[in-house]
Amino acid sequence: MTTNDAYAQLLEKLKRVHLLGTVSELLGWDEQVNLPAGGAEQRAAQSAALADVQHAALSDPRLGEALAQLEAEAATLTADQRVVIREARKDYDRATRLPAEFVREKAELCSRAYHAWEQARPKSDFASYAPFLEKHVALAKREAGYLGWGERPYDYMLDLHDPGMTVALIEPLFAELKAGLVPLVRTVLASPKRSQASALRGFPVDKQSAFLREVTERMGFDFQHGRIDVSTHPFCSGTGADIRMTTRFAVDNPLDSLFSAIHETGHGLYEQGLPAEHAGTALGIAAGMGVHESQSRLWENQVARSRAFWRFFEPKWRAAFSEQTAALSSEALYREINAVRPTLIRVDSDEVTYNLHILLRFALERRLFSGELAVADLPAAWSELSQSLLGRAPSCHREGVLQDVHWSGGAFGYFPSYTLGNMMAAQLWYRAQAALPGLESDFESGNFARLLGWLRKEVHGRGRRYALSQLVERVTGAPLSPAPLLRYLSERYLPLAS
Amino acid sequence: MTTNDAYAQLLEKLKRVHLLGTVSELLGWDEQVNLPAGGAEQRAAQSAALADVQHAALSDPRLGEALAQLEAEAATLTADQRVVIREARKDYDRATRLPAEFVREKAELCSRAYHAWEQARPKSDFASYAPFLEKHVALAKREAGYLGWGERPYDYMLDLHDPGMTVALIEPLFAELKAGLVPLVRTVLASPKRSQASALRGFPVDKQSAFLREVTERMGFDFQHGRIDVSTHPFCSGTGADIRMTTRFAVDNPLDSLFSAIHETGHGLYEQGLPAEHAGTALGIAAGMGVHESQSRLWENQVARSRAFWRFFEPKWRAAFSEQTAALSSEALYREINAVRPTLIRVDSDEVTYNLHILLRFALERRLFSGELAVADLPAAWSELSQSLLGRAPSCHREGVLQDVHWSGGAFGYFPSYTLGNMMAAQLWYRAQAALPGLESDFESGNFARLLGWLRKEVHGRGRRYALSQLVERVTGAPLSPAPLLRYLSERYLPLAS
Repeated sequence: MTTNDAYAQLLEKLKRVHLLGTVSELLGWDEQVNLPAGGAEQRAAQSAALADVQHAALSDPRLGEALAQLEAEAATLTADQRVVIREARKDYDRATRLPAEFVREKAELCSRAYHAWEQARPKSDFASYAPFLEKHVALAKREAGYLGWGERPYDYMLDLHDPGMTVALIEPLFAELKAGLVPLVRTVLASPKRSQASALRGFPVDKQSAFLREVTERMGFDFQHGRIDVSTHPFCSGTGADIRMTTRFAVDNPLDSLFSAIHETGHGLYEQGLPAEHAGTALGIAAGMGVHESQSRLWENQVARSRAFWRFFEPKWRAAFSEQTAALSSEALYREINAVRPTLIRVDSDEVTYNLHILLRFALERRLFSGELAVADLPAAWSELSQSLLGRAPSCHREGVLQDVHWSGGAFGYFPSYTLGNMMAAQLWYRAQAALPGLESDFESGNFARLLGWLRKEVHGRGRRYALSQLVERVTGAPLSPAPLLRYLSERYLPLAS
Repeated sequence: MTTNDAYAQLLEKLKRVHLLGTVSELLGWDEQVNLPAGGAEQRAAQSAALADVQHAALSDPRLGEALAQLEAEAATLTADQRVVIREARKDYDRATRLPAEFVREKAELCSRAYHAWEQARPKSDFASYAPFLEKHVALAKREAGYLGWGERPYDYMLDLHDPGMTVALIEPLFAELKAGLVPLVRTVLASPKRSQASALRGFPVDKQSAFLREVTERMGFDFQHGRIDVSTHPFCSGTGADIRMTTRFAVDNPLDSLFSAIHETGHGLYEQGLPAEHAGTALGIAAGMGVHESQSRLWENQVARSRAFWRFFEPKWRAAFSEQTAALSSEALYREINAVRPTLIRVDSDEVTYNLHILLRFALERRLFSGELAVADLPAAWSELSQSLLGRAPSCHREGVLQDVHWSGGAFGYFPSYTLGNMMAAQLWYRAQAALPGLESDFESGNFARLLGWLRKEVHGRGRRYALSQLVERVTGAPLSPAPLLRYLSERYLPLAS
């Protein structure tokens, strides 16, 4: 084969893998949004059949041959082609180097551990769950070994979610973040002005839905290539041509559904901004979980919690809910949008204290994988860290080590993405303001096109060419740092506390 | 391999084919119900990728080997096992005997002919569409040849939709039906009492939807294993564990959405009644299109257009739409439900004249395949038959030969299923009444469980064991005949005309 033919063959194979992957995603979306209760078992079987087919497509020997040839002839290829090959190699190795027996064992463990977690959580019964967690750590280490990461299993897990991310890179960043965040939280919480409980009640779902649709459309989400539905847990799936987002509604918690939708729209805008012509290759897929989260958080926090954003949307919101908002002042609304209410539960946290939950999890995962911490000692370590970071320890495992689903699926190394995304979002935010003078006054007139255009160019359009830290440096000219996040949180939350 | 191992291997392979097929169906459902406009191209690519995968699964040589061994050892197998093998052989041959080049050619023609039809219909431009139709007839004949039906290509097409159905079987039945139906229609239409136009206006969609949900639940549709949504053209897809039905709503045509939903529920009940443990084999799939249609039509017509049905539902319907129905008498409602309003358009037809449209199409398809009729002469033949059967000829091709989508996809031999289903429905109806004394008084109290139970036992539970005509004979003790349909139409419609 000529180099060109080999490259064409690689692209054709990747395209097929990608298409089958999008079908899997649709099955997953449908499961959360539409599936009748009695269809669950069949859906599991459908997903498993499709996973087999995807695995076969990805481990196609002709894909491997094309890859090997292209790697040998790499010198004659463009930089973009080498990016495609680099990422295809990672996927191909992961599909072909894990023994079938191992893959089966892990799939079975995921299923059993998930059910064990579901049983254990309501009963706060860590002991019954611990053996599954031990097994998951052991399998994760074995998996790292199969793929040549035996010396650095936790880096392997990090790299799975954020290509190029390492413990060595994260540790100093998180230490710096902690040093700034803990006192900031203390100051904010000490303020007598802090709002205590939400006063928003009785917001009809149909009007929430219409308002949220207007907001997401204004942000630039293309409803010709996507939709938003309802599910228990909000998420975003699909690819550029067909993005499926979800949110959830509660009549007494209208900001939750709105900000969930805005968050998912941030993910959706990223996916809609990836170059469609490169769909399925590294040039057309997201850079990683952290970069993805930077997009959702930027829109959710820096943009949609700002005074400028609400200067435009508040009158519309009040018009839609005139009765419910009659007694609410603008300042009270702004304070509600930016309320800081610490909780032991990560997913219920505000954007200020959220990162403390991640620092805790990262520290524990790192020690689990280095062997410094045994699974049996996790609850005690959790309590200790919770006390030092959040100022209190969980009263039961349900509020502590059993609260998250991630580990039950063996998804270690995932949590750090959230905070890496928060850091990157703040860093992008200051860079965008510098690059686009008067950006916030755009928001006051409901115009988000300049920001979106800039993100398209600087982030979305680049696909997976760069690792998160490289991308940040390329876009902002500065290395990845927690300083912009700390600056942003101080600028937004200290005035509310003083 | 032992016979048992070969049979187990066959079942495993068939299960996989089936699961992938259900994924395809879900993609199709989603396309009609959810897909954003801009996702169409990607969906086509997804469906094509999945079709490839399904084809590979069905033409798996190990499936063929198991089949060949089991056929050789058929004497040691049970009758049920032989049914599974018989149908698997048909599917396997169809997957493996058609040359890849032919399959590609046909797929391309389907796509091009559909677009040609879409263009031609609004312009009544038969000439631009005719070449595609000629090509489709030629390909259908070639396809029949590849599969050993070269001498009887139209029988091949019939068998595709209704296993075992032949021209020789249909022709005398349709001739007898025509002889009875044409004078019946003349009598009904001559009646001065015939209602001329619907007076139902302004039915809110949300209330229609709630009422329709109650009706379909009462009929026995299991919403734990299915759902109903909205699409442009109502349909039913999926399998027992997860049935996806659709209807459509118009505020000024509430009976259309209701009867569409009831029709699709008839299909859904059939699918929900197939033995789940045999899913994917001939013991767990529907007997064919005609039998399927017998179920949808039985519920839609014999059951839901009856006075007994409305004795139960009319008060509920009036309660839901008190304003809209205030001036409507019970008799006027019953007459509206059973209005006979001939039209040149098949899909808009009432149940009395509907079959005339099918007699016309069957006669033309038969002559197209026997070579008695050229595609170029179709419009003239259509007009002539329309005049003799319906009493008038279309004024343009849009109202005639261009009205249906079926032929653009090469789906010849499909139309007869509708009337075969109508015949079977009436035949089952009289048998059910004999077997279940007082059946109609069940309906008056909203109870359909006895009828559904009987259908489950006599029809649904039997899967594809029997051809339509065999099944009718087995259930009713009499050969398939149009006499019960003519009797039913006379009993229902003549009293309204006199």
